[in-house]
Amino acid sequence: METGSARGSDLPPGFRFHPTDEELIVHYLCNQATSKPCPASIIPEVDIYKFDPWQLPEKAVFGESEWYFFTPRDRKYPNGVRPNRATVSGYWKATGTDKAIYSAGKHIGVKKALVFYKGRPPKGVKTDWIMHEYRLIGSPRRANKHIGSMRLDDWVLCRIYKKKNMAKSMDLLKEEIMMEENQYPSPEMNNITEDNKMPNLVCEQQQMAFEVPDQYYATSSSTSQYL
Amino acid sequence: METGSARGSDLPPGFRFHPTDEELIVHYLCNQATSKPCPASIIPEVDIYKFDPWQLPEKAVFGESEWYFFTPRDRKYPNGVRPNRATVSGYWKATGTDKAIYSAGKHIGVKKALVFYKGRPPKGVKTDWIMHEYRLIGSPRRANKHIGSMRLDDWVLCRIYKKKNMAKSMDLLKEEIMMEENQYPSPEMNNITEDNKMPNLVCEQQQMAFEVPDQYYATSSSTSQYL
Repeated sequence: METGSARGSDLPPGFRFHPTDEELIVHYLCNQATSKPCPASIIPEVDIYKFDPWQLPEKAVFGESEWYFFTPRDRKYPNGVRPNRATVSGYWKATGTDKAIYSAGKHIGVKKALVFYKGRPPKGVKTDWIMHEYRLIGSPRRANKHIGSMRLDDWVLCRIYKKKNMAKSMDLLKEEIMMEENQYPSPEMNNITEDNKMPNLVCEQQQMAFEVPDQYYATSSSTSQYL
Repeated sequence: METGSARGSDLPPGFRFHPTDEELIVHYLCNQATSKPCPASIIPEVDIYKFDPWQLPEKAVFGESEWYFFTPRDRKYPNGVRPNRATVSGYWKATGTDKAIYSAGKHIGVKKALVFYKGRPPKGVKTDWIMHEYRLIGSPRRANKHIGSMRLDDWVLCRIYKKKNMAKSMDLLKEEIMMEENQYPSPEMNNITEDNKMPNLVCEQQQMAFEVPDQYYATSSSTSQYL
């Protein structure tokens, strides 16, 4: 696949893969688990436990600051139900509380968060690498298939990313929410005023640098009907 | 424009218009302000002050729970610099602090949040309708063009949406962030366990209901190379 499309730059600016938990399970993981094609081939099959997280972005098909993979899971011990979480240089450790994912009122999957530690437990050093792991609610066929095997799941879906500073994230989020709340009423004259002496250099220099797929152009010419 | 494409269902599941502030200004507002085509024709020209916010979603080209418009702004008083914020049934009131938007280190625009009130000040009743208004940093040509006119700006870009309950938003956001923080270490056996007796009904019933544009299919057949 070409690097351009692999990194998502085929999309017009502002468009991105920003799925809900339900969409990931219903439209991607379900299809992968039943050997059907996904709506978009943007999630490669990579055994993420063969690599350290910082090696994964280059193996992704798509992604700016978070990367998606279908990965199998193996057992930690033969016939055990705990998954192996060890990689080359460290291990993934579950954190927080699992989240049940629903679709049309049915419990269809589970989302789990894990943090990567370098080294071996109990002396691992925490890193900023985070995984969200999505798995399906169990199937008797899969359970039978893997009896006696080290394979626990054929496929789970993982989102991998490097977290920002938590305090900064919370500040940004609070700022967004507080913008909505009229707790800081602000007469418009007290805010950023326009500098009428500054030429609009950025817009005048701006060039369209993106190739836009035809389907994104309006077929109707009348978008101004409401003026 | 067909309703299907107008509501964004041409995109594969999980893909959506989720722009950054910078992208909105650089790739959409800049082009609109300089009479160039935008990368995607998804933001119609609508004078939003001729309508109440609950009338706007149906006038949008695109959007699930937030809607974008290019709108002109008129002055509140002749020769004044304050914009008119009144609509049919109420008015928009600025809230919080304006946010400066930068691109490549240059200050290119401003983002302002407003809340809609029904009725007339000072006795308006606050609603859940929120606007984020993006404007460009000033241009001398525009200032000269509108002297003596009630028009303040040819175009600003607005995002309109109905806010969720603030407490709920903060809880959801905290939950996401806390999932990343290992403050609640959670042995995997204590979390949601798979019910191996439940058939995987949801996946087996799932059908592909989306038409997928060709460009989203992988051209390479080898996505399994890393297994």
